[in-house]
Amino acid sequence: MPTRDLSQPLDDDVTVYPGDPSVERHPAATHEDDGYRVTELRFGSHAGTHVDAPSHTEPDGRTIDQFDVGQFAFDARLVDCSDTNAREPIRPADLPFGTEVSALDAEMLVVRTGWDEFWGTDRYYDHPYLSREAAAQCADLGLHVAFDALSPDPSPSQTDRTGRTESSVDAEPEGVPAHRELLGSERFVVENLRGLDDLPEEFELRAYPLALDRGDGSPVRAVAVW
Amino acid sequence: MPTRDLSQPLDDDVTVYPGDPSVERHPAATHEDDGYRVTELRFGSHAGTHVDAPSHTEPDGRTIDQFDVGQFAFDARLVDCSDTNAREPIRPADLPFGTEVSALDAEMLVVRTGWDEFWGTDRYYDHPYLSREAAAQCADLGLHVAFDALSPDPSPSQTDRTGRTESSVDAEPEGVPAHRELLGSERFVVENLRGLDDLPEEFELRAYPLALDRGDGSPVRAVAVW
Repeated sequence: MPTRDLSQPLDDDVTVYPGDPSVERHPAATHEDDGYRVTELRFGSHAGTHVDAPSHTEPDGRTIDQFDVGQFAFDARLVDCSDTNAREPIRPADLPFGTEVSALDAEMLVVRTGWDEFWGTDRYYDHPYLSREAAAQCADLGLHVAFDALSPDPSPSQTDRTGRTESSVDAEPEGVPAHRELLGSERFVVENLRGLDDLPEEFELRAYPLALDRGDGSPVRAVAVW
Repeated sequence: MPTRDLSQPLDDDVTVYPGDPSVERHPAATHEDDGYRVTELRFGSHAGTHVDAPSHTEPDGRTIDQFDVGQFAFDARLVDCSDTNAREPIRPADLPFGTEVSALDAEMLVVRTGWDEFWGTDRYYDHPYLSREAAAQCADLGLHVAFDALSPDPSPSQTDRTGRTESSVDAEPEGVPAHRELLGSERFVVENLRGLDDLPEEFELRAYPLALDRGDGSPVRAVAVW
């Protein structure tokens, strides 16, 4: 079956959400000293390509280990929203539900913004986002949402070179309305996909989280199969 | 399709290979202070259920990011070796190749030892192992190997409570012959599976590694589908 890797690399240049832990890798054992190589990994639960559990934004939300693993293989439907400008909303009319808002024959809507090309640059933070109404419509239709950008909500501006944020992180509950509409309805959100161009309109997206006890999310290897 | 999670949980009780980093999880953002929850994760590249890249034991071996992601969905064949005793070898005669050692219609041999029941206890280190000859036979037949135990080679004894090892880690190249036979032939090794009882003899094992740049291995969510 044709397969495509939709994952950003976990290297020294990972773009993380402002305030999130950076991605670090340190030698823990080496061929020279130990006869084998092991690496200590340090990163946030939302580093790189990852899936959000409801508990990410919902205080009473379920954690990532409380779902059957089979739920993370999604019948996905791609929608191209790459004509949306920086920091502009994707609205219900941009989504493929038709005028009568009928359900898709899919479990997940994969929204292509094309913003993956800015990975590793300040512009990556200026991605389009999903309007609250569009997110609510997805949730009402039972759709999980995946995105080739940092977040379905607007992100704070890039941290400056001293590590301070230029604008404060607006993380009050009203600050992440698309997240809350989706995660509050037990719909997953997959972020930081890449390579959605030229994919078929329908495919299976596999995004199995690590078996993190009480996890609020997990890095994943996101794979498209069709 | 029937699906089973074959992954050990990443919690405070993860059994790690002696000398490997422990699994730690620390709050990085909280609902109370930040409006959302993020966790800083720290663990080794071989923590919990994971896949070894050739570079784990082979100084010139390829790293985990140098393989196409589709290679990590394996047509798997299960063999039950759960009658093997602690620290005893699994030999070629225990494997399902027949007397003429013909190839299996599979890409991976999944070896059930039943040792997953000792996860979290000192006895977990006393697992059966694959003899060099058995590992070489798998490699010769082009088979990747997965195991419901810590390693296909004998493991050092459990660290004592002060963190010192009771026996030194014998990690000279000759100390991990099954690893070297397999990884030296670019066959993957998947370790710390669980729940292999009552699986069908043939299934697909999905063990997609994280997209770790130059990784010597990666924790995975291992999933059986049939």
